[in-house]
Amino acid sequence: MPDYGVLQPRFDAWRARSEATLERILPPADESPQRLHAAMRHAALDGGKRMRPLLVYATGTAFGIDASKLDALGAAVELIHAYSLVHDDLPAMDDDRLRRGKPTVHVAYDDATAILAGDALQSLAFEPLVHSDFDDAIRIAMLRELAVAAGSRGMCGGQALDLAATGDDSSISAPQLERLHAMKTGVLLRASVRIGALGARVDAATTERLDRFADALGLAFQIRDDLLDVEGDSVLLGKTVGKDAAQAKATFPALLGIGASRARLHELARIMETALAPDGERMAALAALGHRVIARDH
Amino acid sequence: MPDYGVLQPRFDAWRARSEATLERILPPADESPQRLHAAMRHAALDGGKRMRPLLVYATGTAFGIDASKLDALGAAVELIHAYSLVHDDLPAMDDDRLRRGKPTVHVAYDDATAILAGDALQSLAFEPLVHSDFDDAIRIAMLRELAVAAGSRGMCGGQALDLAATGDDSSISAPQLERLHAMKTGVLLRASVRIGALGARVDAATTERLDRFADALGLAFQIRDDLLDVEGDSVLLGKTVGKDAAQAKATFPALLGIGASRARLHELARIMETALAPDGERMAALAALGHRVIARDH
Repeated sequence: MPDYGVLQPRFDAWRARSEATLERILPPADESPQRLHAAMRHAALDGGKRMRPLLVYATGTAFGIDASKLDALGAAVELIHAYSLVHDDLPAMDDDRLRRGKPTVHVAYDDATAILAGDALQSLAFEPLVHSDFDDAIRIAMLRELAVAAGSRGMCGGQALDLAATGDDSSISAPQLERLHAMKTGVLLRASVRIGALGARVDAATTERLDRFADALGLAFQIRDDLLDVEGDSVLLGKTVGKDAAQAKATFPALLGIGASRARLHELARIMETALAPDGERMAALAALGHRVIARDH
Repeated sequence: MPDYGVLQPRFDAWRARSEATLERILPPADESPQRLHAAMRHAALDGGKRMRPLLVYATGTAFGIDASKLDALGAAVELIHAYSLVHDDLPAMDDDRLRRGKPTVHVAYDDATAILAGDALQSLAFEPLVHSDFDDAIRIAMLRELAVAAGSRGMCGGQALDLAATGDDSSISAPQLERLHAMKTGVLLRASVRIGALGARVDAATTERLDRFADALGLAFQIRDDLLDVEGDSVLLGKTVGKDAAQAKATFPALLGIGASRARLHELARIMETALAPDGERMAALAALGHRVIARDH
């Protein structure tokens, strides 16, 4: 079993790099329009597990890329993630008031500013890739990966399916719920791994294994999230618990039961291990991140 | 004076190319998630002046690029424009119910779908540039131009300033209002011209003149828009008239008066002519578009 503890200093260093990069890329809060820039910083800085940048660093460094070259790539995917949270939290969407232990952007500012801050974070996400230190052709492949992952065939499409699956009159099967989450969160997690791998010009067979790892990780992440909403601690989580049931949201525990959801989690853990096994020790950080997703309590 | 009439068939052909390209790029309405894809098509197809693609075609063909190579570039800027309208029309923003003679997206669908459709249109906007038929380095420069124009230092920032300038208790000067619109609409219009020019590897001096043309065109567009809201015909316009005053929106007629606004329009027309003059006849289509902006009644 991968030991997250031994790797903790490395993850902490990557998280610090990620924070510093976002701090540098985001416009300063005293630059006009100040309210918009303050809202963007509220959304993107000082919080979050930074799972997506960690996946970029873990993948890229596994294939010999220096962390300093990966900063821009991690920031790109994290900015897409941050924008999606701002919009998902809006009253017209999930109507969440608490995120990472802080008021959500529309609560701290207002709905219009939250919409615009999300929009501007999405535009900004493409800039670090444009300016990153890789060959033109590789940067274009990364930009394509990000645009497709964020769009209607990826993250936005998944959120649309999620809204349609919410409410007492909706019915959705377990495979449909898996597809929903593969789009809503899985595609961007996979893009994080792929963008790290693109930088290293990883071969097709390895990319295919990394995809399998990332797809399992994305689904595991969501099942764990659903379980935490049933069993978790709102202080640890920094967000409201029991909200899924209150909103009649389709979840894995509701659909499969808690026991079967836990069993599926362990199956996904095995898939991740198998996918990473052929590449051996260099995959330790990715393996530890996979394990963390399964075991996390927040 | 440039004759828009003689060039009309060319503009119609470009508009048809633009429509066909958007039709091809947008996911089909029967592809899941259907409601999201239908909303994206509602927002982007069958309507609008297509000013931004026309600027791309007029600039690119002036420097010898075939229209077929410009299709993707025009679609990219138009998708950014289309997404911005969807979000600007939301109840939390300008709260508009009519656009291009059709119900706005949140009226035809719902607020959540409108937010997501706008988000997905923005992601989609980057894809045609990625796949366009230009050298890698040029495509990267175009992608950079689009991301910056759309972001908090461009269009989104301008909309944030616009919201702050709306309401009885706000006060804004004419130069501040010019800056607001330079960001809100000007930067994307300039990006349309620049992206066309990038494809042709236009030299720095010409680019500088094209920027001056585009900046004047953007401001003229807004002043004409404000005048039409005072004097225009809602049937021709396909949207509500008198809305600016009702919302206490800062406008050029309100700030300068109608006479001075018209005088500023004519000054901008002269700036556009002067900027295009050194490049002679090849600029006829751009000149005609500039003239059209000044003279338009919808």
